[in-house]
Amino acid sequence: MLVNGKHYRTIWLNPSDDKAVSIIDQTKLPHSFETIDLRSVEDFRRAIKDMWIRGAGLIGATAGYGMYIAALEAGDENFDVDIKKAGEILTATRPTAKNLSWAVERQIKKICDNDFSPAQKRETAKTEAEAIANEDAEFCRKIGENGLEIIREISKKKNGETVNILTHCNAGWLAFTDYGSALSPVYAAKAAGINIHVWVDETRPRNQGASLTAWELGQQNVSHHLIADNCGGHLMQHGLVDMAIVGADRVSLGGDAANKIGTYLKALAAKDNDVPFFVAFPSSTFDFEIFNGVKEIPIEERASEEVRVMSGKNKRGEICDVQICPDSTPAKNWGFDVTPARLITKLITERGVFEPNKAAILKIYPEAKR
Amino acid sequence: MLVNGKHYRTIWLNPSDDKAVSIIDQTKLPHSFETIDLRSVEDFRRAIKDMWIRGAGLIGATAGYGMYIAALEAGDENFDVDIKKAGEILTATRPTAKNLSWAVERQIKKICDNDFSPAQKRETAKTEAEAIANEDAEFCRKIGENGLEIIREISKKKNGETVNILTHCNAGWLAFTDYGSALSPVYAAKAAGINIHVWVDETRPRNQGASLTAWELGQQNVSHHLIADNCGGHLMQHGLVDMAIVGADRVSLGGDAANKIGTYLKALAAKDNDVPFFVAFPSSTFDFEIFNGVKEIPIEERASEEVRVMSGKNKRGEICDVQICPDSTPAKNWGFDVTPARLITKLITERGVFEPNKAAILKIYPEAKR
Repeated sequence: MLVNGKHYRTIWLNPSDDKAVSIIDQTKLPHSFETIDLRSVEDFRRAIKDMWIRGAGLIGATAGYGMYIAALEAGDENFDVDIKKAGEILTATRPTAKNLSWAVERQIKKICDNDFSPAQKRETAKTEAEAIANEDAEFCRKIGENGLEIIREISKKKNGETVNILTHCNAGWLAFTDYGSALSPVYAAKAAGINIHVWVDETRPRNQGASLTAWELGQQNVSHHLIADNCGGHLMQHGLVDMAIVGADRVSLGGDAANKIGTYLKALAAKDNDVPFFVAFPSSTFDFEIFNGVKEIPIEERASEEVRVMSGKNKRGEICDVQICPDSTPAKNWGFDVTPARLITKLITERGVFEPNKAAILKIYPEAKR
Repeated sequence: MLVNGKHYRTIWLNPSDDKAVSIIDQTKLPHSFETIDLRSVEDFRRAIKDMWIRGAGLIGATAGYGMYIAALEAGDENFDVDIKKAGEILTATRPTAKNLSWAVERQIKKICDNDFSPAQKRETAKTEAEAIANEDAEFCRKIGENGLEIIREISKKKNGETVNILTHCNAGWLAFTDYGSALSPVYAAKAAGINIHVWVDETRPRNQGASLTAWELGQQNVSHHLIADNCGGHLMQHGLVDMAIVGADRVSLGGDAANKIGTYLKALAAKDNDVPFFVAFPSSTFDFEIFNGVKEIPIEERASEEVRVMSGKNKRGEICDVQICPDSTPAKNWGFDVTPARLITKLITERGVFEPNKAAILKIYPEAKR
């Protein structure tokens, strides 16, 4: 997508030095746009662990490139052993992110299950890293195509009047290698000339809506307003939202969707006001082992400081942390909640648009049958 | 209630100088506890306008004391004219706050509708100011008594295990002269030795939960945790909330309740998870002229900077504003939403606990019959 009018992905091989992988340092957004070169497995470990990059798709792509750098670092003597060690280091950075171990294992299989020379293995790792990143982008592009038809329908029903779309957190291109999941249909609609406007939930406590989604939409010139997470219900009560669309971190075989904390509240308001509610994600987000998402999907509890302390830019332009509660106030911080399938209108993946129930999911994903 | 172990109201006649009225400067909370003396109508105008004090009950009480200070300022020659001018100045500070004009008009009637001497009128104004403040505290105390029985019932059903109570915004003693509305039953339960724990919604964008409710509960030694506004649905899904209780800014004859933005979302989650949802307020909050609250209660739209910029204490202990979104991001900011009566379990006022429907309301408030 565009940054200051120039096309970027979130991660790419440095064209002038193919022993370096470039990323956008997302910890600096929205106040500063900076890229960093990663040149060692240690760089990759820190980039994932300290969230210089984040988002399911991008974590997977980064792990893929990290394994290419691991192949450059691996000694000719114990090549496969070194590769597997690097895989363990990367996998340990964020143990709950599914795409991470998936990408690492895919690379290990590709690199090690053959009789290639170390040089050939290094080339293989590079090709596979690019393949993982390209697939992620391609799946997201297709999600955009599929979701576009939904927005087009609503636009037609409104005779071309502005379609108001509410989103929560950041499921944009910054969470993948390109396009995004929930925002991909938004970008496709913008490109198709449909009048759209996005309500951006700020998404406390980490403010991914305020810092990432608002920045993305501004860069793509998509009309939008930032709102407090508390605001969406009021907007829906007063006819100011035509559809809601969010991403997902894990979706069950029953169609329940885990996503950023607060998603469930918006889905309830959507249901109460007959606003269609969509969940968009690449197929890798499905967890076919789980049926009842509310009961079975484990929810990460994160540091209380994320609630107690807020980060932003002060009047001197410096990034600054401020504490918003008394010194002694304890806080609790769950990162995700689960929206039951009954509140979701349709699921959107690269394979299509379908209802959130087991029968519909198995029709599109026959491989999930046990 | 207690501040550092000492009893305070939010407003009181300075005992060593009865020409001064003392208030807690709420703009400094939670990072600093400071009181200020108000000695002129101009002081009162700024205190209400610039929100040194806030909350429906406290705004009314402050206006009452402001009219006493107006009586001290009024010249013997044109006493009643001066009083009415002061009333206009105070009423204009926050035109939407109902209790403000109510208190000003009550004082004007009491001060001017008689043949008293200026000295007698001044004494009358002082007595009436105290009466308004005392009534506010007494009504809140009774709300606490009435709500206590609800908490006691839940505690019994749980065999004395901790009752988990979720609240949104600040409807504590800081919003009234003492006790509060939604928090009054919480304080009564604490005093009665019932095991309670409060989930405090931070209440973006102005963070009254993080800055005021958390501070109040800490001072009264009530067990609590601060949470992001997004968190309540997840807590309710997992049985971690036994009841929700909030205040109100206006309640219709049909039982719909306007309250801080985001209240509606919590009421939806409560309904979806069979968690009882209570709205507590003094009778003066009723607007019997309105039936359908969602359609008829006007919702204030406030400055977008409240969403874009957050205030807190930096590492050097200074109060500091930080911007949480890109420079160019526009924001929208509605201050309240309306929770339909169908989502409310019971209303709690100083007169009792009753269902949110016209028949039940008219039974308790026969004066509302037209």
